[in-house]
Amino acid sequence: MRLRNKPWAKEKIEQHPQYIVPNPEDFKGRWKEAFVKDQPLHIEIGTGKGRFITEMAKAHPDINYMGIEVYDSVIVAALDRLIEADLPNLKLLNVNAEDLEKYFAKNDVARVYLNFSDPWPKVRHEKRRLMYKDFLKKYEDILIDGGEIHFKTDNQGLFEYSLRSFSEYGLLLKFVSLDLHNSDYEGNIMTEYEQKFSEKGNRIYRSEVKYQNEGKDSSL
Amino acid sequence: MRLRNKPWAKEKIEQHPQYIVPNPEDFKGRWKEAFVKDQPLHIEIGTGKGRFITEMAKAHPDINYMGIEVYDSVIVAALDRLIEADLPNLKLLNVNAEDLEKYFAKNDVARVYLNFSDPWPKVRHEKRRLMYKDFLKKYEDILIDGGEIHFKTDNQGLFEYSLRSFSEYGLLLKFVSLDLHNSDYEGNIMTEYEQKFSEKGNRIYRSEVKYQNEGKDSSL
Ligand SMILES: C[S@@+](CC[C@H](N)C(=O)[O-])C[C@H]1O[C@@H](n2cnc3c(N)ncnc32)[C@H](O)[C@@H]1O
Ligand SMILES: C[S@@+](CC[C@H](N)C(=O)[O-])C[C@H]1O[C@@H](n2cnc3c(N)ncnc32)[C@H](O)[C@@H]1O
Repeated sequence: MRLRNKPWAKEKIEQHPQYIVPNPEDFKGRWKEAFVKDQPLHIEIGTGKGRFITEMAKAHPDINYMGIEVYDSVIVAALDRLIEADLPNLKLLNVNAEDLEKYFAKNDVARVYLNFSDPWPKVRHEKRRLMYKDFLKKYEDILIDGGEIHFKTDNQGLFEYSLRSFSEYGLLLKFVSLDLHNSDYEGNIMTEYEQKFSEKGNRIYRSEVKYQNEGKDSSL
Repeated sequence: MRLRNKPWAKEKIEQHPQYIVPNPEDFKGRWKEAFVKDQPLHIEIGTGKGRFITEMAKAHPDINYMGIEVYDSVIVAALDRLIEADLPNLKLLNVNAEDLEKYFAKNDVARVYLNFSDPWPKVRHEKRRLMYKDFLKKYEDILIDGGEIHFKTDNQGLFEYSLRSFSEYGLLLKFVSLDLHNSDYEGNIMTEYEQKFSEKGNRIYRSEVKYQNEGKDSSL
């Protein structure tokens, strides 16, 4: 999703600090202060143009949402949506998920959404996949105990990899659909990529996994 | 796979004790004595007409195989194949997998194959599915440490259920393919059901899971 270079993007982002948090490191450990209401925070990593996170924020006013996107040329599209919708429970972050620990402390986040993440199909690029074990550790370090990752994609290889990676990390598979759009799952909100690839006839895969904390610090 | 009642099936089975073990409880804990060579034992539960297990036994002479099938009217078809092939490393058992513990002791088995198991799609029949937790416990009780289950099916709902059930039981997902016949997996041997359903255009799903014994009896 590398769009044309948009030199005005940085400036536009800076002009909307109420939507794209300018100094996220200041909120580490106290994100509730960035939102109107003190309620659970769900973050999407790789938000892209922001359709999913904006519609989720509209549908679930009892949850705070944050869309994280590394490219400024992409996040400005999400910004336009948020300006239009003006939601009190949605913020955007223009940062790299590699650096999550700079901006979030343990227990800051209740759920991580990964939607149509870049597949990085070459074995030598495994470490870049957002379900690689080092990323699963980063999520664990900012999630509440029992926190969840909700992941969907149309990429069969990435989904297979993710199921294995989640299992190796010891995550509990709570939900899995191998054909989301032909299932009885309700309340699905489509992302931009999901609209595009399901129109092409691709199957959509979806899973929910949970960090299991029992036994970790027990003396058993 | 309920075939016509075959009153002669019982008699035919009794006439071939070298292929269909007549008193399997006698071999509990010492199955190596039933085979020519002392080598790992892989069992298939719900063998049906026996194509898979017979071809596996031909392809892997360094493994002992056993096909378990509850219906005598079905197992006679597997018996015909075995009579024809006359393999030293394959036996059949005409018993119900509910009773595995009567015939096998801990460490008797290195791997369990489940192929196109009956899906029992109704929630109230969950306990009959061969991947229900009570069955996973039965397999654990007869497998070596680190023993594996290899499972394939064309039934999407059963596969989704199995991934969840395996995860809840704490099994490690070593391998998963969401479209086996369009993958680079080599050495696949098709079952009767697999031939039938893949010809209809159905996708074949396959997984390998492993019992993880680390930490169970450690003092950590
Ligand atoms: C394939 S797009 C999917 C966009 C959107 N989730 C959708 O489903 O339509 C992946 C997005 O993730 C972003 N991304 C990839 N790695 C990232 C990272 N480490 N941190 C933040 N964003 C990332 C990319 O810039 C891109 O916009
Ligand atoms: C759907 S068929 C599949 C046969 C074969 N595996 C194939 O793929 O062609 C399932 C088989 O499992 C057998 N079966 C089901 N439950 C069983 C049990 N508890 N113990 C032994 N066999 C069982 C059935 O009798 C049937 O022959």
